[in-house]
Amino acid sequence: MTYCVALRLAEGLVFASDSRTNAGVDHIATFKKLHTFEVPGERLLVLQSAGNLATTQSVVSLLRQRCTQPELSLLHAGSLYQAAELVGATVREVIARDGGQQQSGVNYGCNLLLGGQIQGEAPRLFHIYPEGNFIEASEDTPYFQIGESKYGKPILDRVLTYHSPLDLALQCALISLDSTLRSNLSVGLPLDVLCYRKDSLQGQPCRIGEQDLAYAQLRKTWSEGLARLIGQLPPPPDHWLGND
Amino acid sequence: MTYCVALRLAEGLVFASDSRTNAGVDHIATFKKLHTFEVPGERLLVLQSAGNLATTQSVVSLLRQRCTQPELSLLHAGSLYQAAELVGATVREVIARDGGQQQSGVNYGCNLLLGGQIQGEAPRLFHIYPEGNFIEASEDTPYFQIGESKYGKPILDRVLTYHSPLDLALQCALISLDSTLRSNLSVGLPLDVLCYRKDSLQGQPCRIGEQDLAYAQLRKTWSEGLARLIGQLPPPPDHWLGND
Repeated sequence: MTYCVALRLAEGLVFASDSRTNAGVDHIATFKKLHTFEVPGERLLVLQSAGNLATTQSVVSLLRQRCTQPELSLLHAGSLYQAAELVGATVREVIARDGGQQQSGVNYGCNLLLGGQIQGEAPRLFHIYPEGNFIEASEDTPYFQIGESKYGKPILDRVLTYHSPLDLALQCALISLDSTLRSNLSVGLPLDVLCYRKDSLQGQPCRIGEQDLAYAQLRKTWSEGLARLIGQLPPPPDHWLGND
Repeated sequence: MTYCVALRLAEGLVFASDSRTNAGVDHIATFKKLHTFEVPGERLLVLQSAGNLATTQSVVSLLRQRCTQPELSLLHAGSLYQAAELVGATVREVIARDGGQQQSGVNYGCNLLLGGQIQGEAPRLFHIYPEGNFIEASEDTPYFQIGESKYGKPILDRVLTYHSPLDLALQCALISLDSTLRSNLSVGLPLDVLCYRKDSLQGQPCRIGEQDLAYAQLRKTWSEGLARLIGQLPPPPDHWLGND
C-alpha cells in the first residue's frame, strides 16, 4: 500500500509520500512515489503515485522519456491543466496496453497527484484518477490524499485550512503520515517530502528516514502532547458513566 | 456505515457506537447498535453490531426472544465464551437463512462485538466475525473496532493501553468516534456509550446527542488543544524545506 498527501495553500504547496510497496505482507519493497519535473526558475511539477506499481512506474518512465518531445512533455506544457491532461492520457495508454490482456483479478489502476507551478500561473494541484480524468484542489478543499488515506485524514480535517502557514502544513502532513505508519504496516519509512513556496519556481525533495532526528523529535513531541491533552480534558459527566 | 469500538482495560470495559445506517447517501436512518443483556448483580453483556442491518436486527431479535430458553439464552450462558458461541451460532443461522436465496451482490455479513462480565469471571471482550467464529481481546490488544474503523484508530494506537483509567478510555473512545464523524458522512450522531466498572455487574447505556453540552465541550477542547499542540511543535529544520 501507499499513502501520499498533497496540500495547496495560500503560501504554496506541500507534498509528502511514504515509500513502501507491497504485494502481500511478505513481498515488501521501497520505491520512491514522489517525482519532480523541473525547469528551475520557470516551473516545478511534482507527481505522486499510488496503485499498481507496474502502471505507475511505466507512467513516470514514459513522461520522463517524452520530456524531449514538446507536444508530449511536462517540461513544455503551457499550463498545469495541460500537464494534468498529459498525465491522464499516459495513464489511459498504460492501462490500455497492460490491462488489454485481461488477466482476471489484477487491478492495473493507479491514482496520481500532480501539483506545482508554471510561470504565469498560480500554484495548482490535481488528483488524476485511474480513468485519466481529474479534479483540482480549491480553497474549500485544500488537500488531496491517495492510497491508504483514512488513518491520516482526521488530523488534516481538524487542523488544516487554505490559510495555514507552510511550516505548520508540513508538520501536519508529517503527522498525518506518522498516524498512518503507526496504524498500518503496509505504509512505511522513509518518507519523501517537498515543501514549495509560491512563486519560487524551484524545489528540492527531502528524504526523511529513521535516522532523521527532527522527525523523531516531531513524533515524540506529538505523542507526548496528545497524551497530555487527553489528560487535560474535562472529566466525563456522571450521565456518561451511567451514574444517574 | 457504522463505527463501534469496545475497550477491555484493567478497570473495566468501555463501549461506544454511532447510530447511523445507510444504503447510499440518500437512505440514511438512525438505529441503535449497542444492546445490553443484563441480570443486575449477576451479569452484564453488551452487544455492538456493524454490517447488514437486516442480519444484525435478526440476530439481536432472536437472541432476545431466546432469553427464556436456558440452553440458548445469553442470560443463562455459563461464561462469556459460551455467550460468544451462542452469538456466533445465531449469526450463522441468520446468514444461512437469508443468504441462502443468493441474491447476487448483496452482502449479508455482519461483525459483532460482545463484551461484559458474568459473576465468577473477569470482564471479557470478543469480536465475532460474519462466519460466526471469534477472537478475544487481550492485554496486548485491549480494543476492537468494527465498521468504519480507520479514521478513529490512530488516537487509540497513540494513547490507549490496558492500564489506562476508565475515564480517560471513555474520552479516548469518544474522540475516536468524533474523528470518524468528522471525516465520514456515513457515521453520525447520536452516540451510545456504556462505561462498565469491573465487578459492578450492572451498567446503564447513555445516549449522547447534538444537545449534550459535555460532548460539545469535549469536541471543542480537543480541537483547540490539537491546534495549540501543532503550533507548539519544533519548527521544521532547513533540510525538510529544501533550504540546504
